[in-house]
Amino acid sequence: MPDLPFTFTLPTPELIPSHYDNHIQRRLSALKGQFLDEKAYAEMLGREDTLLYEVYEITRPQAAGELLTGLSVVHPGKVGGEFFMTKGHFHAVLETAEVYLCLKGEGFMVMENPEGECVVERLAPGKVLYVPPRWAHRSVCTSRQEDLVTFFIYPGNSGHDYGTIEQQGFRKLVMDSPAGIVIVDNPRWNKK
Amino acid sequence: MPDLPFTFTLPTPELIPSHYDNHIQRRLSALKGQFLDEKAYAEMLGREDTLLYEVYEITRPQAAGELLTGLSVVHPGKVGGEFFMTKGHFHAVLETAEVYLCLKGEGFMVMENPEGECVVERLAPGKVLYVPPRWAHRSVCTSRQEDLVTFFIYPGNSGHDYGTIEQQGFRKLVMDSPAGIVIVDNPRWNKK
Repeated sequence: MPDLPFTFTLPTPELIPSHYDNHIQRRLSALKGQFLDEKAYAEMLGREDTLLYEVYEITRPQAAGELLTGLSVVHPGKVGGEFFMTKGHFHAVLETAEVYLCLKGEGFMVMENPEGECVVERLAPGKVLYVPPRWAHRSVCTSRQEDLVTFFIYPGNSGHDYGTIEQQGFRKLVMDSPAGIVIVDNPRWNKK
Repeated sequence: MPDLPFTFTLPTPELIPSHYDNHIQRRLSALKGQFLDEKAYAEMLGREDTLLYEVYEITRPQAAGELLTGLSVVHPGKVGGEFFMTKGHFHAVLETAEVYLCLKGEGFMVMENPEGECVVERLAPGKVLYVPPRWAHRSVCTSRQEDLVTFFIYPGNSGHDYGTIEQQGFRKLVMDSPAGIVIVDNPRWNKK
């Protein structure tokens, strides 16, 4: 054997919970209409229905006073210039909050409320993000190679409203550009 | 200078949140009547009102749908054979849960409900603990040198009932012994 450089991997945490009741895998086809560059989206989907993100959930009663927890893993990648992201949602019970703790990777949480306010917060390991009641939220992975992994907690009675975002999108997009990552207005917001 | 062994410390995370609204410090005197060995308690208190644990809280409205978050730091030490611990409490709104994520250290969460069930769960970094509605809970630090640090989340309307535990104690105690850490029945439970 030639004396070549070699690598091996020390056991690093896989960041998959040791117990979960439900494993959701969301692929490109589940985010139809959400990415700005429809041509790039169609081309990518023609090649493969790429896995964008995964969620590991713990089942609990969907009742006020209960807490739902889980792990969100957004994989790295782009559709055109737009980074891989989650569908994003409002809570069906709008007056419920959510807490995220970033465990790994880099990215952003894109948020907006029905009053028209929007905030985009950077996520990095160790960062806790409080999403107040009334704020829709979407995670975006901006690393080139690494998953964005967050631990989330929300009230048991929150529910999910995916429809509003599917219909109108988020007001802000997180895009790659020659100058780096940029956060831009969504030209198609509420115009679908 | 002689060429002696020396040490220095690389910047390790201090595990104090970069932002908090309230910093609670609970000393030995705040846990009067909770430790089994009253003689050891009195002697220790005679020397110093030792700091047992600290809580860093983020203020939010105390409303259902909101989430209260913070960091709990239980310092290492013993009163007689009993490890340093938090006061422990039920939630005033009994039907509310709590989630703990252990970030550092080693210890236990001692839990019981009004129905007489009790569970003692081991805490270690990366472990998530779900405390269901109705369960009182107390953290215990069992490391010789290291703090037990946990990140906690509970519903905004939970409130605290410290009085029940102050009056009756927990059913289980976490004690040091020549054979190691033992979890024993509390001989004074409900007998104060």
